[in-house]
Amino acid sequence: MGELRVRSALVTGANRGIGLGFVRHLLALPNPPEWVFAGCRDPKGHCSKLALKHPNLVMLTDPASIKAAAASVGERLKGSGLNLLINNAGIVRANKLDNETLKDMSEVYMTNTIAPLLLSQVMLSPARQPGDPGSGLSCNKAAIVNISSTAGSIQDLYLWHYGQAVSYHRCGAALNMLTRCQSMGYREHGILCIAFHPGWVKTDMGGDFEDKTRVTVDESVGGMLKVLSNLSDKDSGSFLDWEGKVMAW
Amino acid sequence: MGELRVRSALVTGANRGIGLGFVRHLLALPNPPEWVFAGCRDPKGHCSKLALKHPNLVMLTDPASIKAAAASVGERLKGSGLNLLINNAGIVRANKLDNETLKDMSEVYMTNTIAPLLLSQVMLSPARQPGDPGSGLSCNKAAIVNISSTAGSIQDLYLWHYGQAVSYHRCGAALNMLTRCQSMGYREHGILCIAFHPGWVKTDMGGDFEDKTRVTVDESVGGMLKVLSNLSDKDSGSFLDWEGKVMAW
Ligand SMILES: NC(=O)c1ccc[n+]([C@@H]2O[C@H](COP(=O)([O-])OP(=O)(O)OC[C@H]3O[C@@H](n4cnc5c(N)ncnc54)[C@H](OP(=O)(O)O)[C@@H]3O)[C@@H](O)[C@H]2O)c1
Ligand SMILES: NC(=O)c1ccc[n+]([C@@H]2O[C@H](COP(=O)([O-])OP(=O)(O)OC[C@H]3O[C@@H](n4cnc5c(N)ncnc54)[C@H](OP(=O)(O)O)[C@@H]3O)[C@@H](O)[C@H]2O)c1
Repeated sequence: MGELRVRSALVTGANRGIGLGFVRHLLALPNPPEWVFAGCRDPKGHCSKLALKHPNLVMLTDPASIKAAAASVGERLKGSGLNLLINNAGIVRANKLDNETLKDMSEVYMTNTIAPLLLSQVMLSPARQPGDPGSGLSCNKAAIVNISSTAGSIQDLYLWHYGQAVSYHRCGAALNMLTRCQSMGYREHGILCIAFHPGWVKTDMGGDFEDKTRVTVDESVGGMLKVLSNLSDKDSGSFLDWEGKVMAW
Repeated sequence: MGELRVRSALVTGANRGIGLGFVRHLLALPNPPEWVFAGCRDPKGHCSKLALKHPNLVMLTDPASIKAAAASVGERLKGSGLNLLINNAGIVRANKLDNETLKDMSEVYMTNTIAPLLLSQVMLSPARQPGDPGSGLSCNKAAIVNISSTAGSIQDLYLWHYGQAVSYHRCGAALNMLTRCQSMGYREHGILCIAFHPGWVKTDMGGDFEDKTRVTVDESVGGMLKVLSNLSDKDSGSFLDWEGKVMAW
């Protein structure tokens, strides 16, 4: 099994849930990144406590400005390019077919699908990569990880019977499509792209901490990092779950 | 083979291309609808000429107001409910991964994916259906037809090498997901839901009228109406092409 060894990583939605789990696990790696950038809306949230102990953790706290975040990242990396972008921030609106609104649909699409593309453009575009596709793809070199959901599987349409969150389903499918597009467009630039279903995880979003069928943040994130450390060329553009199982589109 | 016989139909994007083709073919059916509603932004476009000859053709010309359109439809149908909604209006922006913009992504999602759901809510929601699901689903009773594209197939990702229209790809996938959600949510209300790839059609969008591999609007629309006339329960929620072939998600 490979070992994950990245010089730099950026995680969005990092103040709680799965995003916070990624930050914790990355900082605890045998060879932790030189820089972990954490997208956090609340500068006083959980990440601020972690940052006191970890000088390599940098909080990016202006959600409205991707440019400001890019400047902050660029300053630290001095042009060497980010290795790992984890697009994790996401929201659900529990609307059904008949009460779905323009406002909610736009907000969910903005957060779950538009932002991941805009972030990839700035943080991990080919222009910013040293680019050595010859030696094959790997997460230790450059990767975009989009945290999607089995709710975005058009075939399985999992969770439908739990709440019909129509716009969440649609944005998951669109994020999977983005992952496929990125894998096609960025392969020649040496960037591996993957979509993950993190499992049904005990977070504010996943709810019900007593339900034994749900996994903990540590299990989910630990699983995904293990999967990531083993990915290569053939996996780019896939939709996998936290244990590495291929999911249906 | 069944014969398509609907009392009322609504087609969006009806002033040219595939939408105009649907209006023409519906008006020319052996048993034409009592009412054909045509969503047209330009009140002086192609449909206005057709309307002079066909008193059963009603143009809905205020694109900003779905409410106004619903009122106009309701007035004619006198509460009997629309039979067939064809969500056809759609746009492409030829942006690639690295020059895709917030504005364009939002506009494409608005037109291609949000509007079809909002229209379905008003025009063909269960509340507006007489609802006789017992006798099985059929387009002659009540149907939502979403004009999608093979470009929205996450597996095939057709057209990628022609132009990488990232937001169009994503919105196609999201529209297919909407179709699946609608088929689940509306089955018990007697509404059949289907997504179509119309073929690569000679329209302003499809381009290149000389290319022999592309089909004409008449072939595409004729094919889709034939397929529609034969659909039943088992087909609801599918993604088919204009000849009835099942497409991959
Ligand atoms: N939990 C599950 O079972 C499950 C299953 C499948 C997929 N997922 C996916 O996993 C990801 C993380 O989920 P989670 O369970 O950890 O959710 P969570 O506990 O609700 O956390 C969501 C995170 O996203 C951030 N966020 C939300 N909207 C944002 C915005 N507009 N701008 C910036 N940040 C925003 C939140 O920031 P604040 O703290 O500032 O609000 C928070 O850090 C999501 O993409 C979700 O769809 C979760
Ligand atoms: N042609 C192909 O090869 C092909 C292949 C796959 C899928 N499709 C799909 O088929 C559908 C029709 O395509 P087409 O080839 O007929 O395209 P087209 O010739 O470009 O016509 C597009 C139609 O959509 C309308 N429209 C665009 N944006 C709108 C908006 N914001 N509000 C209201 N109406 C709007 C246009 O109205 P105006 O006339 O007012 O501009 C026009 O009637 C689209 O959904 C497209 O994605 C086409």
